[in-house]
Amino acid sequence: MTTTELQQVYEIIKPYVHKTPVLTSRLLNAECDATVFLKCENFQKTGSYKLRGATHAILNLPELDRNKGIVTHSSGNFAQALSCAAKNLGVKAHIVMPSSAPNAKKNAVKEYSGIITVCDPNLKAREAESAKIQQETGATFIHPSNDLQVILGQGTASYELIQEQSNLDYIICPVGGGGLIAGTSLFTHHFSPKTKVIGAEPFKVDDAYRSLLSGKIETNEISDTIADGLKTNLGSNNFPIIQKYVDRIIRVKEQEIVDAMRFVWERMKIVIEPSSAVAIAALLKEPQIFENKKVGIIISGGNVDLGQLPF
Amino acid sequence: MTTTELQQVYEIIKPYVHKTPVLTSRLLNAECDATVFLKCENFQKTGSYKLRGATHAILNLPELDRNKGIVTHSSGNFAQALSCAAKNLGVKAHIVMPSSAPNAKKNAVKEYSGIITVCDPNLKAREAESAKIQQETGATFIHPSNDLQVILGQGTASYELIQEQSNLDYIICPVGGGGLIAGTSLFTHHFSPKTKVIGAEPFKVDDAYRSLLSGKIETNEISDTIADGLKTNLGSNNFPIIQKYVDRIIRVKEQEIVDAMRFVWERMKIVIEPSSAVAIAALLKEPQIFENKKVGIIISGGNVDLGQLPF
Repeated sequence: MTTTELQQVYEIIKPYVHKTPVLTSRLLNAECDATVFLKCENFQKTGSYKLRGATHAILNLPELDRNKGIVTHSSGNFAQALSCAAKNLGVKAHIVMPSSAPNAKKNAVKEYSGIITVCDPNLKAREAESAKIQQETGATFIHPSNDLQVILGQGTASYELIQEQSNLDYIICPVGGGGLIAGTSLFTHHFSPKTKVIGAEPFKVDDAYRSLLSGKIETNEISDTIADGLKTNLGSNNFPIIQKYVDRIIRVKEQEIVDAMRFVWERMKIVIEPSSAVAIAALLKEPQIFENKKVGIIISGGNVDLGQLPF
Repeated sequence: MTTTELQQVYEIIKPYVHKTPVLTSRLLNAECDATVFLKCENFQKTGSYKLRGATHAILNLPELDRNKGIVTHSSGNFAQALSCAAKNLGVKAHIVMPSSAPNAKKNAVKEYSGIITVCDPNLKAREAESAKIQQETGATFIHPSNDLQVILGQGTASYELIQEQSNLDYIICPVGGGGLIAGTSLFTHHFSPKTKVIGAEPFKVDDAYRSLLSGKIETNEISDTIADGLKTNLGSNNFPIIQKYVDRIIRVKEQEIVDAMRFVWERMKIVIEPSSAVAIAALLKEPQIFENKKVGIIISGGNVDLGQLPF
């Protein structure tokens, strides 16, 4: 990709997404002896950065394919994001959701006119159901984190951050399926090459950390982290980008995630989801790296179940 | 007060307070068919608008009195605000707190170097302890909501809101001890005379509603509302201002407060305290008043105990 092509990605999706605010906090700066800039995608439409990638993926489809609709399987933020993006663009969105998905998430998808198909709560059932919908309707499958157009769209959050705050020493972002960090590191490489991109990951699902060590995509044996958005594994399209452009991964404990989330809610008065707190926890965990540095953090989302808080 | 005098109040406190953001929300606008502007004092230093009044009250003391310190009794946001304001201005702050005050609130006061005196949890004990400290130290007593200089300081939140958004049809703010709404209505009268100021109050502590009906300060028999910041009664200094400049009071039920708080946390991703949710609940309760209007809301604070949420 060229710098011009990446700029075009941003120009294409710009009319459909919020330019989210970049917040600072005296209290957070004091806590870590750094100057921290939070790119608040929790304020993005649908409550997460995923609207960016979803919008870009749909916009990249040929007219003919768009008319046949799109399909994905997701129980999380991508389900809402794709439904919303599709609605904004007048495209039909089929969302395959596991029967275990909470009603709140199903309702959010319905609000954006997403067409839900419920399946058994396992990957095989999800994939089978998606394939069936593809066959029956001609809809295009869009993967939540491994689709290249999705990856490019996700990177535009860091593009906006870099435009607003130049000379960042670091950008930290959470790593789940790898779409966000791949896009972030690609845009950062092109528009702020001196800025190092660091991934943040729970110890309990440290597949990205292990993948970078081994040089191949590793999976997680267990996945009971509180950071429910980060349970998925890296993909074949985003992993090479991550290998090339990501400086390192910082791993954090579950209690550190909860503490970071509490800090942001209590002191900064904004609602962030556990996956985003992972990035704050990484910042607080390794103060020697970030001391006196300018650090950007991608606050990936703010979708939480208020009935299931860890406090 | 003249318009120039009120402007001076703002100029005096300006260096010591955050100019808090004014947020909007498509979702909130859609919910009430109005254009709503939230003046976010939850992002104010110490987490509430009370820093404004506290700062103004201290700045108005003669040098000689400032040197002797100040004293107040409060278990809530004013305790933190006065401690912080005093620290910023190099003044000693004595805070009388009931023994029932949660440790989190005591610690917040200590963080700002406030000197805590614990007393029995009733008004008589608080007043006696405050009087004793005044006698012993020469400290000046500053009332959280009935001190005229405090009232004037609190009004500066609405001043900033009006500067940013002209032609508001309404400003809604919660009513507790009456300091915020008195200051708000005074500034609004001077700087945006066509804007009507509406108070929002829980049914369970509707003393302001009843006071405006009867023409004298009424008290509350019970005070078990979730909006813990609104339990106090109006005072002799703020009541005449409220009678003169406040258009009406809208009362809301406890469940309406919780629902409004949930809406703002879930949809707008910001942490507001129950007292602030009372103002949102009032907006949602009487849609016919606010339909197609421009409505400002003072989000008074964001200090909540995450271990005691109503969700």
